[in-house]
Amino acid sequence: MKNFYSVEDVNDIESFPGEALEVKNNPLNYKALGNDRSLCLIFLNPSLRTRLSTQKAAFNLGMRVSVFDIGKEGWQLEMEDGSIMNGNKSEHIKEAAAVIGSYFDVVGIRAFARLQNREEDYQDTILKKFMEYCGKPVINLESSILHPLQSLTDLITIHEFSPVKQPKIVLSWTPHPKALPQAVPNSFAQWMLAAGHNLVITHPEGYELDEQFTKGATVTHDQNEAFEGADFIYAKNWSSYHQYGQNLLHDASWMINREKMTLTHQAKFMHCLPVRRNVVVEDQVIDSKDSLVIPQAANREVAAQTVLIKILKNL
Amino acid sequence: MKNFYSVEDVNDIESFPGEALEVKNNPLNYKALGNDRSLCLIFLNPSLRTRLSTQKAAFNLGMRVSVFDIGKEGWQLEMEDGSIMNGNKSEHIKEAAAVIGSYFDVVGIRAFARLQNREEDYQDTILKKFMEYCGKPVINLESSILHPLQSLTDLITIHEFSPVKQPKIVLSWTPHPKALPQAVPNSFAQWMLAAGHNLVITHPEGYELDEQFTKGATVTHDQNEAFEGADFIYAKNWSSYHQYGQNLLHDASWMINREKMTLTHQAKFMHCLPVRRNVVVEDQVIDSKDSLVIPQAANREVAAQTVLIKILKNL
Amino acid sequence: MKNFYSVEDVNDIESFPGEALEVKNNPLNYKALGNDRSLCLIFLNPSLRTRLSTQKAAFNLGMRVSVFDIGKEGWQLEMEDGSIMNGNKSEHIKEAAAVIGSYFDVVGIRAFARLQNREEDYQDTILKKFMEYCGKPVINLESSILHPLQSLTDLITIHEFSPVKQPKIVLSWTPHPKALPQAVPNSFAQWMLAAGHNLVITHPEGYELDEQFTKGATVTHDQNEAFEGADFIYAKNWSSYHQYGQNLLHDASWMINREKMTLTHQAKFMHCLPVRRNVVVEDQVIDSKDSLVIPQAANREVAAQTVLIKILKNL
Repeated sequence: MKNFYSVEDVNDIESFPGEALEVKNNPLNYKALGNDRSLCLIFLNPSLRTRLSTQKAAFNLGMRVSVFDIGKEGWQLEMEDGSIMNGNKSEHIKEAAAVIGSYFDVVGIRAFARLQNREEDYQDTILKKFMEYCGKPVINLESSILHPLQSLTDLITIHEFSPVKQPKIVLSWTPHPKALPQAVPNSFAQWMLAAGHNLVITHPEGYELDEQFTKGATVTHDQNEAFEGADFIYAKNWSSYHQYGQNLLHDASWMINREKMTLTHQAKFMHCLPVRRNVVVEDQVIDSKDSLVIPQAANREVAAQTVLIKILKNL
Repeated sequence: MKNFYSVEDVNDIESFPGEALEVKNNPLNYKALGNDRSLCLIFLNPSLRTRLSTQKAAFNLGMRVSVFDIGKEGWQLEMEDGSIMNGNKSEHIKEAAAVIGSYFDVVGIRAFARLQNREEDYQDTILKKFMEYCGKPVINLESSILHPLQSLTDLITIHEFSPVKQPKIVLSWTPHPKALPQAVPNSFAQWMLAAGHNLVITHPEGYELDEQFTKGATVTHDQNEAFEGADFIYAKNWSSYHQYGQNLLHDASWMINREKMTLTHQAKFMHCLPVRRNVVVEDQVIDSKDSLVIPQAANREVAAQTVLIKILKNL
Repeated sequence: MKNFYSVEDVNDIESFPGEALEVKNNPLNYKALGNDRSLCLIFLNPSLRTRLSTQKAAFNLGMRVSVFDIGKEGWQLEMEDGSIMNGNKSEHIKEAAAVIGSYFDVVGIRAFARLQNREEDYQDTILKKFMEYCGKPVINLESSILHPLQSLTDLITIHEFSPVKQPKIVLSWTPHPKALPQAVPNSFAQWMLAAGHNLVITHPEGYELDEQFTKGATVTHDQNEAFEGADFIYAKNWSSYHQYGQNLLHDASWMINREKMTLTHQAKFMHCLPVRRNVVVEDQVIDSKDSLVIPQAANREVAAQTVLIKILKNL
């Protein structure tokens, strides 16, 4: 594997969850691969799970890790080609990417959507430029539009916990006080469909996702109908793609609660975290024995380590 | 040792300083214990000594360390059970603690008192919740009310430098421009008394500490009387416990100066640092040959390593 | 080598570039030196290259590294001797330096000029106090007036890429929207001259540098004349030394462009980065095959590692 930007960098998605669970069982068996190898994790935005699980994955491999909050600890980056840099941005992404690539064997970067201009966000400029100029493998630690380490985690977790071979997986929009990017639902849909899963997406009108990621999924505005017979409920808020970045609706009736869960086939509850309790999901659901949120988050380490192994093998 | 929250987690306080000094003499002798083990240090507040000495202690043990300023690099934490999380707090401490615990073998956390509500601070919620939900050993890196790594350091330092078997130890309140928590004096009193030391506490009226920590100490408002014949002067400001969080008095006469030190039995001067020179203590005292502040701070590494060893042995 | 504060700490400048290129070819050959050794990198200012390249250099040596943004993660430092610390500074540099020195084998520190008071900046107080109180080797990660890791890098890079034995090296002032310190040009001049290089400095009137660093260089206000026959163009903005900290002139005609480069002897273009594109230098120059900015930045790792090796050998 060269980069890990999206599901398209994966040519063996069927065997991926199985390989990952082997890594999970023997995390320290791959240390020879990472010995004397270095990783730089660059953050333009907050992170708990990605920051810590990717460090831990690298530790398991014996890698050395630098964590870098580039905007606070380094310089503001200019993204535009040909710009006259006389404003508040001190460094062009061309130089930043090439320099960091000259020091480290692998580079991860997180850069959220700004939710102000859809076209801009969907070009995913920072990730693309890093892959163009860095000269080393780049791992997407959540970009404007994709969060593949999360989606791979979700695939592994579903593989680990599914009671049936072909589970019914439901991605449900939920309320949220702030407008959030579409990276997690885009990526979740992309990965579930690429893996051949049966995916139902349910959301209020106006929250349709970009079809490039959801083509092949069943979409319904009827949350109850979606929940019927589901094996997994994957809850997530996102802001509108068509009225870009708008948080159109604060309809609390879309919150995941116990009553809705009874419609399912004893579905497991999933969420990428952080989660707003009693806004996105009721305490009774997230604290129930069917909630997978903690083992799911724990699998972030497994996903990151599996990706690092594939990248290191290819160096 | 499971957690290191307070002196109550220690069942061998008499042998602790001796063990610590053995660690100090051979810090690299325990690397097998920490090999392939990981530590996460979480900070909600500033830290120099704790941050660096605990990292260094873990390095001596061959551990891998992640440092995480959770509020700045991650998310604001909600502490209340049952709350409807539609404000500015993105993640509940239940999830944060459990997720971090899923990645790391040992977790340290610092969370200062806010000094607004005594009852709230004295519940020490963040530390308690972390111990409840984290699933891994938790080290108190200074909580609202306790700073046991500092107090263990102080115990080691007194053991190392005491001219007599039963030294007279004086904890003296000092002036300070800002209101400070009671964590250091609470904890110092708790440890000294648990170790069977002869402790005198001196402070102006209104600065009485919580008796749960000081029972057994001699308390006096007469600083000069307290200093007579003392072997150790431990200087520290704290805000009022009874008029909670108030800095009632800026009486410069309580500053530790050379004149007062002459009342003592050539006492060693101690302070946990950082210290306000010429407010808490005169330059002449802190710069004298009887000042232990630097070897004391150096012992923070020893204390942290000794605690990590006890925790690692119990994993 | 005890400290690495300036070129004066180097007694073998002639052999330094050659040694450095040997380190570059076999970066992992020196791990025994750094094994069980620790490095603390302290930053009072932003940093990308210094922060990451010095970490990477230490990784190559098997060292353990703590990175510490002291002002944000720790405490504000008081620098004045004898001050009554009742303001917003919680810790004196005397204690901070001594405590950090008690934990780590080697300490690096970055502290930029504030550009408000020349005498103050040129005393380089923070670096000097750290060297005085720390008790361990101190590496200058860019001080108010010097940036020796950059200058050593530049020396190595010129050695690596020079087409001739005695290249003509030109340090050219360039425009910049903000007032910048003189550390890079001071240090560049100091190192080039100490290494016996032929150095021409060109700048507009009013931008004369402190002669203690430039004595022996040819200085001209005619940029075109300076460029004639040059083998290396080293571009850099700095604010005025004589009208201290002033950015007197925004004369875009001093920008490095292709036309000017044609006056040279196919000169290589160098800059320490970060660089303002199309303000300091035109895209066409920095993106040309004669631009060394990326290999130059990559050599920061080599310079840092070579310095660490010399310090470790002396421990």
